[in-house]
Amino acid sequence: MATPEMKPLVACRLTVIGLGLMGGSLAGALRGHCREVVGVDRQPETLERALAAGLVQRASSDLKEAVGEADIVVLATPVRTIIALLGQIAPWLREGTLVMDLGSTKTAIVDAMATLPDHVEPLGGHPMCGKETSGINAADPELFRSRTFILSPLSRTSAAAVALGQELVCAAGASPLMVAPERQDYLVGTLSHLPYLLACALINTADRTTSADPLAWQIIAGGFRDTSRVAGSDVTMMVDILLTNREEVVKAARHCAEALAALTELVEAGDEAQLREVLNYIRDTRKEMYP
Amino acid sequence: MATPEMKPLVACRLTVIGLGLMGGSLAGALRGHCREVVGVDRQPETLERALAAGLVQRASSDLKEAVGEADIVVLATPVRTIIALLGQIAPWLREGTLVMDLGSTKTAIVDAMATLPDHVEPLGGHPMCGKETSGINAADPELFRSRTFILSPLSRTSAAAVALGQELVCAAGASPLMVAPERQDYLVGTLSHLPYLLACALINTADRTTSADPLAWQIIAGGFRDTSRVAGSDVTMMVDILLTNREEVVKAARHCAEALAALTELVEAGDEAQLREVLNYIRDTRKEMYP
Repeated sequence: MATPEMKPLVACRLTVIGLGLMGGSLAGALRGHCREVVGVDRQPETLERALAAGLVQRASSDLKEAVGEADIVVLATPVRTIIALLGQIAPWLREGTLVMDLGSTKTAIVDAMATLPDHVEPLGGHPMCGKETSGINAADPELFRSRTFILSPLSRTSAAAVALGQELVCAAGASPLMVAPERQDYLVGTLSHLPYLLACALINTADRTTSADPLAWQIIAGGFRDTSRVAGSDVTMMVDILLTNREEVVKAARHCAEALAALTELVEAGDEAQLREVLNYIRDTRKEMYP
Repeated sequence: MATPEMKPLVACRLTVIGLGLMGGSLAGALRGHCREVVGVDRQPETLERALAAGLVQRASSDLKEAVGEADIVVLATPVRTIIALLGQIAPWLREGTLVMDLGSTKTAIVDAMATLPDHVEPLGGHPMCGKETSGINAADPELFRSRTFILSPLSRTSAAAVALGQELVCAAGASPLMVAPERQDYLVGTLSHLPYLLACALINTADRTTSADPLAWQIIAGGFRDTSRVAGSDVTMMVDILLTNREEVVKAARHCAEALAALTELVEAGDEAQLREVLNYIRDTRKEMYP
């Protein structure tokens, strides 16, 4: 098959499936950049809210129709729902439709995308942003502004389709970054999924110990709030992420448990010189990360 | 000795020793609430900066004089320096002087305060605020606004001295909370010192694994930034805190390592039902903490 021509973004009808925080935000960010932005959700109230907030131009509960008329389909549900939806929508997709997703793990999704019909253009996607709030009421068209937006093309994805995906990312205000699925899952396992587990472990620790003391609630300080923030993330989303990136998440968690144990031992031993050296190195490392 | 009369705050000369983030901020917060705010620091540039920024009314490098003329002395250095300073300033303190501190661990400091001469009024203090920045340039008179400020009186501390300490805390915009030293060290070990160790373990993990991939720097997301924020704290301050609250910190870290291991095992086993239940409980728990 010759490389197909793709329409420019402005001529495309975009269908976003799943109008939660991410889907609702992307729909809102792309309004005005596409011919039409159509939103699909199982919850009628969510569709109403998305329309009322001006995030979509049209709301639909007819998945088949909304997918069949689309030039671009973006799947914005939890990861395992994305995988199930890929199988469900496959027969309804027109020739040349760009099928993207916003899921946090890429290997499992891109593997499922490989089973789409040959006439479809699959492109994995993962915007590096989020909030501890979820749902359409938290949606914000500025969510992607200045953020990195990972794109994982399949070997079969045409250059024109990748270019259209990049145009979409840029229109949302983000910067596209091409990353192979396994590499993205490795990186994100440590940089995004591990912080979630640590935040959960911290909340769990306080809950099992200090929270029994009523004074604890009056003295929880800023450090605790920030370190535990992502423990407030949507659980259905996180369960899917953890279970579809299991191997990398477990490896990252084990690495971190070793690092915590090493620090704990230095404190316990009162090894001041070594403790100071390690903590200085860590502080400098973080300063390099966030200059 | 009968309960001594204490001057009201507005009639007191306040000497703050150590013009870093905390000391500089407290000095600035109390200007106008005291007869005079005097700052002491070993670094001449710090004194100059504190004067230029209007955080203190007078700067002194003469510790003996600044302490001897004070009605209230606040020690705002790292914890082990506070303990050393208590011994050093003891002979120079006038009758009835209120001696406070801003250190994050209280048992070791209050034990050292117990050795002060009988004519002095000791009162442990710990404002529950901070930043990952440090030094006089980060000082902010609004730092204490609406924060909890722990006070740990000794059994010998007079009611009048405690009342003056409370007046000082309120003048800085904070809310005083009376907590016994051991209880505060237990609570803060989990709620403040443990988050620091977790943030350090997270940075260490990324540094030893994903940071070798140049793409890692482009995809570090908001979750990683927040969870690791306190790893940027001042190392000299943190070493002192960890080593003077060693037992509680080690216990909290071990608790948290268990919680992390349990979560990791659920992910590894793919035990979806249990994982979902635990993560939902954790999410709800955090929502209770930060409604």
